[in-house]
Amino acid sequence: MYRPELKVVDCTIRDGGLMNDSHFPLEMVQNVFRLLAQSGVDMVELGYRNSKKMFDPAKYGPWRFTSDDDIKRVIEGVDYECEIAVMQDAHKAFADDLGPKENSPIDIVRVATYVKDVDKAIHLANNATDKGYKAAINIMAISHVIERELEEALQQIEEESNIVACYIVDSFGALYSEDIDYYIQKFKKYIKRAEIGVHCHNQQQLAFANTIEAIIKNANYVDGTLYGLGRGAGNCPLELLMGFLKNPKFNLAPVLDAIAKDIMPLEKEIFWGYSVPYMLSGILNVHPKEALKIHAMSDDDPKKFDYVGLYERLGEV
Amino acid sequence: MYRPELKVVDCTIRDGGLMNDSHFPLEMVQNVFRLLAQSGVDMVELGYRNSKKMFDPAKYGPWRFTSDDDIKRVIEGVDYECEIAVMQDAHKAFADDLGPKENSPIDIVRVATYVKDVDKAIHLANNATDKGYKAAINIMAISHVIERELEEALQQIEEESNIVACYIVDSFGALYSEDIDYYIQKFKKYIKRAEIGVHCHNQQQLAFANTIEAIIKNANYVDGTLYGLGRGAGNCPLELLMGFLKNPKFNLAPVLDAIAKDIMPLEKEIFWGYSVPYMLSGILNVHPKEALKIHAMSDDDPKKFDYVGLYERLGEV
Repeated sequence: MYRPELKVVDCTIRDGGLMNDSHFPLEMVQNVFRLLAQSGVDMVELGYRNSKKMFDPAKYGPWRFTSDDDIKRVIEGVDYECEIAVMQDAHKAFADDLGPKENSPIDIVRVATYVKDVDKAIHLANNATDKGYKAAINIMAISHVIERELEEALQQIEEESNIVACYIVDSFGALYSEDIDYYIQKFKKYIKRAEIGVHCHNQQQLAFANTIEAIIKNANYVDGTLYGLGRGAGNCPLELLMGFLKNPKFNLAPVLDAIAKDIMPLEKEIFWGYSVPYMLSGILNVHPKEALKIHAMSDDDPKKFDYVGLYERLGEV
Repeated sequence: MYRPELKVVDCTIRDGGLMNDSHFPLEMVQNVFRLLAQSGVDMVELGYRNSKKMFDPAKYGPWRFTSDDDIKRVIEGVDYECEIAVMQDAHKAFADDLGPKENSPIDIVRVATYVKDVDKAIHLANNATDKGYKAAINIMAISHVIERELEEALQQIEEESNIVACYIVDSFGALYSEDIDYYIQKFKKYIKRAEIGVHCHNQQQLAFANTIEAIIKNANYVDGTLYGLGRGAGNCPLELLMGFLKNPKFNLAPVLDAIAKDIMPLEKEIFWGYSVPYMLSGILNVHPKEALKIHAMSDDDPKKFDYVGLYERLGEV
């Protein structure tokens, strides 16, 4: 499906950073960016621009705070046409964390928010657009939102911000494709001046299928990551998305190269992807934090494989 | 989605046997069967009933030839309501491989076939029904079939056999959900006296999504395996299917138990599931044999991670 207005966003360094406290070596980020630039992806998100008051820089790596200088080191010498994004968490970043657009390599600030923090999100999005950047608002944990509150938030976003996209974020990987339909229709009812985006998680192996469904239903911002690298079960794999899309500007080979050289070695250090604990979080529509704890256990710990016990515990929430 | 006529089929031992030459220990198969019987799954396929003239019994384990006595040892002492199936490959089994129904614990013989072997498949299916069993015909490698030949084969199956189900088998994991729609409509145009089934592979992480799509489009036989165990990228995970279906007779806990005790330990010996080599086979619609070879390489072999080279080679077919 080739639709010129469709924007494919890679957020490997940003969402993947949730699995290693954003500690990617600079050379790895440079290589990933260089190859993504060759792949024709429309936007590359190079981490969070969150506050050092909210995250301890002694614990978290540079891509939790991604500075303009960090980005300049990444893009130096690379011929690129993609947009460059950073993410701010509505409740973990402040307006002052973002400087003026002059001389900044950032094109767009994506603000991730829970519905309850929508005022903070609009404040940060307006801070970005006032300073000359584009902005998007990504509504997280959509499957836990009371619909009346969602509708109010969407109305408020439409009236009070000037974003380019408003995202449905299936943080818990709980949505089926008919739910994606449902939320896109709901978003489109309120959001008239911005595109709709989707960011899917793979707890139920539906991230790619749900992203396709969203594309069919005219969502025009879609997120993927290299080999699905991302929190817990991970994200929609960018390589699958590019295989599906027929836009001739895309080139899969550099994506494969980046996976081989920069992503596969991470499998020795961190685990992401489908598993029974993540699957149970998805079908029960709960935060993956319990599943993340289980994955941190040693393989020798029999509790790691007490799936029946986990199913009972998660179902009691 | 609760539809009483929907039959959920577990084929862990059969399709999983493609990854270990059908060498499962008897106690493992007993345990899996006992737990699947508790889960409420409608049918359990306990291997192939292929010919010892076509597979060397010195190389292949018992579940490539699953005898009535093998099955009796598996089900002994288990209180079960599910049907018991075996599969015959149209080109790897003979009518004499199947004895009379009297005293056989087998309920249904599923015949897997390429379109070119449809005459053999009908012969084996009729052999089964003549002997008192139910039969199904599973058309493999559907994404490589010339449509005119498929239509002829479906017409012939409808006219010349008495099966309970005719399956769409996406052996190469190449179908998107709109393709599933398309094939179901085509099958329904010809197959009037039997249900439509789907058996999906996970090269593009679409096995579960495509199975849901098939259920929505009224396919009434759907296949899954424990944790997706199956050839290459594997199958639709049974645990996801059960999480999606709302039939109150299903019980997920024994499925989780079987995965924890009997399937996870296999991960130390064999690899199945999503990977870049399988993904490339899927998007290029080719047999996973090249990808299987790559997975058999040592991790130290740099060719194992030459994804760009593989992409070029597979694309030249």
